[in-house]
Amino acid sequence: MINIDIQPLDNEAKEKALTRQNNLTKPPGSLGKLEELSAQLAGIYRNPLPRITNKVTVVAAGDHGVVDEGVSQYPQDVTGQMVLNFLTGGAAINAISQNSNSDIMVVDAGVKSDLPSHPQLLSMKIDKGTKNFAKQPAMTIEQAEKTVNNGISLANELHKQNTDLVACGEMGIGNTTSASAITAIICDRQPREVTGRGTGIDQESLKLKIDVIEKSILLHNPNPLDGVDILSKVGGFEIGFLAGLMLGCASNNIAVLIDGFICTAAALIANAINPHVNDYMLGSHKSVEPGHIVALEHLGLHPLFDLNLRLGEGTGAALVMPIIQASVKCLTDMATFGEAGVSDSS
Amino acid sequence: MINIDIQPLDNEAKEKALTRQNNLTKPPGSLGKLEELSAQLAGIYRNPLPRITNKVTVVAAGDHGVVDEGVSQYPQDVTGQMVLNFLTGGAAINAISQNSNSDIMVVDAGVKSDLPSHPQLLSMKIDKGTKNFAKQPAMTIEQAEKTVNNGISLANELHKQNTDLVACGEMGIGNTTSASAITAIICDRQPREVTGRGTGIDQESLKLKIDVIEKSILLHNPNPLDGVDILSKVGGFEIGFLAGLMLGCASNNIAVLIDGFICTAAALIANAINPHVNDYMLGSHKSVEPGHIVALEHLGLHPLFDLNLRLGEGTGAALVMPIIQASVKCLTDMATFGEAGVSDSS
Repeated sequence: MINIDIQPLDNEAKEKALTRQNNLTKPPGSLGKLEELSAQLAGIYRNPLPRITNKVTVVAAGDHGVVDEGVSQYPQDVTGQMVLNFLTGGAAINAISQNSNSDIMVVDAGVKSDLPSHPQLLSMKIDKGTKNFAKQPAMTIEQAEKTVNNGISLANELHKQNTDLVACGEMGIGNTTSASAITAIICDRQPREVTGRGTGIDQESLKLKIDVIEKSILLHNPNPLDGVDILSKVGGFEIGFLAGLMLGCASNNIAVLIDGFICTAAALIANAINPHVNDYMLGSHKSVEPGHIVALEHLGLHPLFDLNLRLGEGTGAALVMPIIQASVKCLTDMATFGEAGVSDSS
Repeated sequence: MINIDIQPLDNEAKEKALTRQNNLTKPPGSLGKLEELSAQLAGIYRNPLPRITNKVTVVAAGDHGVVDEGVSQYPQDVTGQMVLNFLTGGAAINAISQNSNSDIMVVDAGVKSDLPSHPQLLSMKIDKGTKNFAKQPAMTIEQAEKTVNNGISLANELHKQNTDLVACGEMGIGNTTSASAITAIICDRQPREVTGRGTGIDQESLKLKIDVIEKSILLHNPNPLDGVDILSKVGGFEIGFLAGLMLGCASNNIAVLIDGFICTAAALIANAINPHVNDYMLGSHKSVEPGHIVALEHLGLHPLFDLNLRLGEGTGAALVMPIIQASVKCLTDMATFGEAGVSDSS
């Protein structure tokens, strides 16, 4: 069972923010998307003059049995090795989170290898990787619910720590295969339309990857409206965990930044569980994976930039944190025409 | 006379940075545009492992005689009023620069009103606004050279203060009219193709603005290859100052972030004076002004994001500073596959 209660945004706070934006010392609307962002954040925080002070990047990791089919060019051990790299501070997400003044938290949602205990590592391992979904469901329904509920639990904990903004990230060799399957099912697309080269496979492996996804969907026949059903059949532990994290953030009035393709697939699962979650989501970037923009559009999310990123880990989401913060600082810190003694338009 | 010596980028440092990027713990190329940026910065700083520590946003202000033609909806006094707003910290650029941990420096390059002395205000007033270029040249050749040289002087000063990264910004009621004229001349476009609504004029005023630009170009017949000639005929004091600042930054191995349409017009003038300056420029955003993308393409610059900004002041450039810094931090702080014990692709 997944119990989650999500309130609509506070429209009064949102409207107050928009009214204030029109009185600030700039031509109305001239801060473009930043004005919309600041109003959404006012609605999320239920405060027309919000502050963002506590930021955290959550990187959830999990392994995927489907790599047995040859869908990735990196060996499965890389998932655990990269978790260690996150913990020693050597990965891109460490550099970018630090640059954005964001804390980082790593979650073992279901990594194959055993991982040491570490203050920055939260162990919520459901199993040592999913089953190969080309042959059987990736996980049981109970496991799917458990990993989503683990994500919700972390969000409740982050709320207690006064977290304002969460960047979602992931690591899991093979997880673009799972993300493409989820996107094809929920967005009603052919797998070939939403499947890309992941970390950089060649044309032949791409064809194989598409075949695996097509056959898996035929084998399991998931219900496109049932997030837990889809998650159990073709998902991943880290994807379910992130879906839960998003639901839990929304339930606790925490804004949640969606990273690239895998995080957006997790957002599709979260949206299938409770569609109100979208109001609390912010898009970050547009990945080179072809399924990413399809999933973003399904959710009504807009990427803020397109830098040809295809790394995951939460890099795009953490990169955009200062821009989110800037939108709020303009809303709260700028002077109005009256305060500054600046003439309004004639 | 404008004397400026600009060296090509350090290709050895650039190549070393690219080689290092390929050995860092991520699939090669997966940080996309961030990898290219970091290599350009290595070339600018002549260091394969550069650091960005000292950032400054320079906002140059000037008034424009051409507002007598009715091309702007705001009264001319707003330029001086907004300078005071910058100095008391109430403008968008203050909020955004602070959010990006950047210092701010305001320059009176030729504001009509008298301005008080202030530690953050550099007085380099050439005159109390330009002449109405619909009737006579905006400034003399001597004034044009003087304002460019003032910009170069500031860059030399910033170099002494160990500045690494400069965001260019501007304020000047009427200056989109000047920027459109410059863009039309240098990029060989019809004024109607590169003229927009500025702070928000209506359709009728837009038609008038285009007429004024067309007639002014016919009247002055500027040489499209001579930056100083164009500046003197249809430019602005703040535009010339920023062109000089860009040239001076390039000469001192300082990276310079180009903001919106007016800054990009200044970059066109700088490029006409010395084309090597482009190597030291970084694009920031894509403004809603139609001439902006035309000018960026002419310079070979790529915007990093499109947030529908149309404010100027350096807001887009200052907003992108953390992303520029993140690109360098990934280059310098990430572990290589060997250092982290992560398996490379099979």
